[in-house]
Amino acid sequence: MTAKNAFYAQSGGVTAVINASACGVIETARRFPDQIGTVYAGRNGIVGALTEDLIDTSQESQQAIAALRYTPGAAFGSCRYKLKGLEENRAEYERLIEVFRAHDIGYFFYNGGNDSADTCHKISQLSETLGYPIRAIHIPKTVDNDLPITDNCPGFGSAAKYVALSTLEASLDVASMSATSTRVFVFEVMGRHAGWIAASGGLASSQALAIPVIILFPEIPFDQQQFLKRVRETVEKHGYCSVVVSEGVKNPDGGFLADAGYKDAFGHTQLGGVAPVVARMVYNELGFRCHWAVADYLQRSARHIASEVDMEQAYGVGKAAVEMAIAGENAIMPVIVRVSDEPYEWKIDRAPLEKIANVEKKMPEGFISEDGFGITEACQHYLRPLTFGEAYPPYVDGLPGYIRLKNLSVARKLETTFEI
Amino acid sequence: MTAKNAFYAQSGGVTAVINASACGVIETARRFPDQIGTVYAGRNGIVGALTEDLIDTSQESQQAIAALRYTPGAAFGSCRYKLKGLEENRAEYERLIEVFRAHDIGYFFYNGGNDSADTCHKISQLSETLGYPIRAIHIPKTVDNDLPITDNCPGFGSAAKYVALSTLEASLDVASMSATSTRVFVFEVMGRHAGWIAASGGLASSQALAIPVIILFPEIPFDQQQFLKRVRETVEKHGYCSVVVSEGVKNPDGGFLADAGYKDAFGHTQLGGVAPVVARMVYNELGFRCHWAVADYLQRSARHIASEVDMEQAYGVGKAAVEMAIAGENAIMPVIVRVSDEPYEWKIDRAPLEKIANVEKKMPEGFISEDGFGITEACQHYLRPLTFGEAYPPYVDGLPGYIRLKNLSVARKLETTFEI
Repeated sequence: MTAKNAFYAQSGGVTAVINASACGVIETARRFPDQIGTVYAGRNGIVGALTEDLIDTSQESQQAIAALRYTPGAAFGSCRYKLKGLEENRAEYERLIEVFRAHDIGYFFYNGGNDSADTCHKISQLSETLGYPIRAIHIPKTVDNDLPITDNCPGFGSAAKYVALSTLEASLDVASMSATSTRVFVFEVMGRHAGWIAASGGLASSQALAIPVIILFPEIPFDQQQFLKRVRETVEKHGYCSVVVSEGVKNPDGGFLADAGYKDAFGHTQLGGVAPVVARMVYNELGFRCHWAVADYLQRSARHIASEVDMEQAYGVGKAAVEMAIAGENAIMPVIVRVSDEPYEWKIDRAPLEKIANVEKKMPEGFISEDGFGITEACQHYLRPLTFGEAYPPYVDGLPGYIRLKNLSVARKLETTFEI
Repeated sequence: MTAKNAFYAQSGGVTAVINASACGVIETARRFPDQIGTVYAGRNGIVGALTEDLIDTSQESQQAIAALRYTPGAAFGSCRYKLKGLEENRAEYERLIEVFRAHDIGYFFYNGGNDSADTCHKISQLSETLGYPIRAIHIPKTVDNDLPITDNCPGFGSAAKYVALSTLEASLDVASMSATSTRVFVFEVMGRHAGWIAASGGLASSQALAIPVIILFPEIPFDQQQFLKRVRETVEKHGYCSVVVSEGVKNPDGGFLADAGYKDAFGHTQLGGVAPVVARMVYNELGFRCHWAVADYLQRSARHIASEVDMEQAYGVGKAAVEMAIAGENAIMPVIVRVSDEPYEWKIDRAPLEKIANVEKKMPEGFISEDGFGITEACQHYLRPLTFGEAYPPYVDGLPGYIRLKNLSVARKLETTFEI
C-alpha cells in the first residue's frame, strides 16, 4: 500500500490532555512516512471534514507539535456536532467519504467520547459499503470517564486530580475560618449522568489528612433531610465540612436540583448553578455560613496540574491508534488496561467499536458508600492512581508557555460545499 | 533583656502563603533563643489570645514547621474578628495585655490586612499606657493587595497567578468550542472594593498568546450597554471571549450587580454570584452561549500553583518581623520595596503602623485602560513579576503533602475567662 494521508479530529468537550493524544498521533505518524503521508486535522472537529476545512499539520514544526503535550484546549478546535444515524442522514457520511477521497485520506482518527465512537464506527461500516477503504480508529477522550471496556478515559485523571486538589485546598481554607465564620464549602463539579468527577472530591481525604467531604452524586436521588442531617452532624464533629456536588444531582421527582426555585425577576431559569442552591439551603436550614465555587471549564482545562499518568495515557492512546492503523486494524479503539493496582501499572489493548459506541459506563455499585454521600475503599483504589504524577508545563514569565499552532489551511479540492 | 515569649496570630481571610510567613516567624525565632523563648500561636487568630487559647509551636518538629512553607490555609486557624476602637472596648485590649503578661509574652506578631494593622497599632499604644512592654509588629497578608506603602501584599501574587492561569486555560477551552457552541466564558473573582485580583485576569493575554479578556472592575460603575457592545465586538472579531468579573462590581446606582433581580422562590436574595448574572445577561441580550465559573476560596488557597516570588516574600516578611523586633523596633510593618522592574528585584524595608492602619490602596488610575474594560501596560509591568516562579509543594500519591500541625495547647494560667 502506498502512503495514504490521515485525518484527525477532536470532538466534544475538551480535556487538559486531549492535545497530548494529538501529539501522539502526529509524532507517531511522522515516524512512518512510507505508510502515512500528511496528517490533516479537522478545523473545529468533524465540522472541518464536512466543510472541507482541513488543517495541514505538516506545516507545524517538531517543537510546536511536541508542545501539544502540555497545552490544554483543543489545538485544532472541537465541536458539539453529533452526526445523525446512517438512515436519517446518509448524506453526511457520504460527504465525509467524498472529502476523504478528494484528499487521499486512508486513516480516520477520531478523538472523543461515546458519540464520536459511534460516528467512527459508522464511517468504518460505510467505507466498506461504498468501497472506499479507510481505517477508522477511535481515540478515547472524556473527563466524564464513561466509556466502556477501557479501565479509564484519558482526560478524566487530570480532572480528578484538579477536583481532589481543589477540594483539599478549599477545605484547609474553610477549616481555618470555621471557628468564627464560614463552616461549609460547596464545590460544584461536572457530571450530568455519572458521578466519576464528583467522586474524585473524596480523594481530598487521605490517611495523612482526614478531610470531611460530603459528595452529592447524580446517581443518588437527592434527599434533603438526610443531606442536611449529614451536614449538621459533620460540622458538629469536625467544625466544618466540604460538599462536592455534581451538576447533575436530581431531586426524587427527576428534576435537576439546580433548577430548584431559581428564577430571575423575568421568570427565566438560572443558567446552571447547583452550588448556590445547596449553599442557600444549608444556610437557610442550618444557619451555617457557606462559601461556594463552581469549577466549570477550569476542571477540564487545568493542564497546569494535569496528572502525569493521564498525560502519558492520552499520548499513549494516540500513538497506539496510529500503530494499530498501520498494522491494518479498523473499527477499534485503543483501551487502557489496569495490569496492577499497587504499584499501579497499565498497558494499552484494543476493543471493537461496536462494543464501545453508545455504551455509557456508570459508577459501579460498590464505589458509592452505603449512605450515598461518599466513596468506598474500592473507589479510592480505583481513582487514586489515575491522579499520580505532576506533568508540569514549562513556564514563561509566570504563566505556562502554551502553544498556539499556525493551523494553516489545506487548499480545497472539491467544487461542492456542505451546509452544517 | 532576658528571653521573652512571642505571640503570633493569623487574621482574616487566608492566602496560599500565609503559612510561609508563619514559617518565617517561627524558624527565625528559633535562631534567637537568647531573645525569644517560645512562639505561642493564637488558636483561631486573636480570639485565641482573648480566650487564652494558645498553641505551643515548640512542640512542632523542625520538619513540620518547614512544611508550613508549602501548606495553604491558616495552620493555627484564623478568624474574622475585628477589635473595636480603644474607646469603645478598652476591655479587649486590656485582656490581651493580661494574657500576654501571664505568659511572659514580649513580642506580638500579627499577620493580616488593614484591620489587623490597626489592632497591632492600638496594642503597641496601649502597652505603653499600661506600662507593659511589648514589641508589636504587623506582618502583611492579603489577597486584596490593598495595604499602603508596601509595593504589594504577600498572598496577592499567588492569587494573581491563579486567576491569570485559570483565565488562560479556560480561554483556550472556550476558543476550542466557539465555532459551534460556547462563545463566552465568565469568571468571577474576589475583590469587594479593589480590582487587583480582577486585573490579574488581564495577564492571561501575553505577547505569545493574545487572549481576548474583558474585565469588570469594582472601581468602574457597570455600564450594561457598553459592556454588551464590547462583548459583541470581541466575539465578532475573535470568535470568543473571556470576561473576568470582580464580585464587587456595582451598578451606577451603587447596588451590587450580583444582586440584580436574583431572588429565589421565597424572596431570598441569592448568596453571591455575579458570574451567573453576567452570563445570563450575555445570553439573553446577545444570544451567545456562555459558561461561567466562580473561583471563591480556590483563588486564595491554590498553594499548588503559588508564585515563588510571593512565597519568598511571605516568608521574608515573617523573618524580617522577628529580626526587627529583636532589634528593638515596635509599631511597624515590614514592607516590600520594588528595587527594579526588569529584572524584577525586591527588598524588605519597614513602615510605621500609623501610616498603614485603616488605609486602603486602590488601583492607581493609570492601571485601568481608558475604556474601563482592561489593564494598561503599566499595570502589566506591575503585576507580572508578582506571579513569577512556581513554588511547587511535594506530592504524595497524586496530592500535595500538606501538613497539619499537632497544635497542642498551652496550659492556661489565668483564672479569668473572656466572652467573645
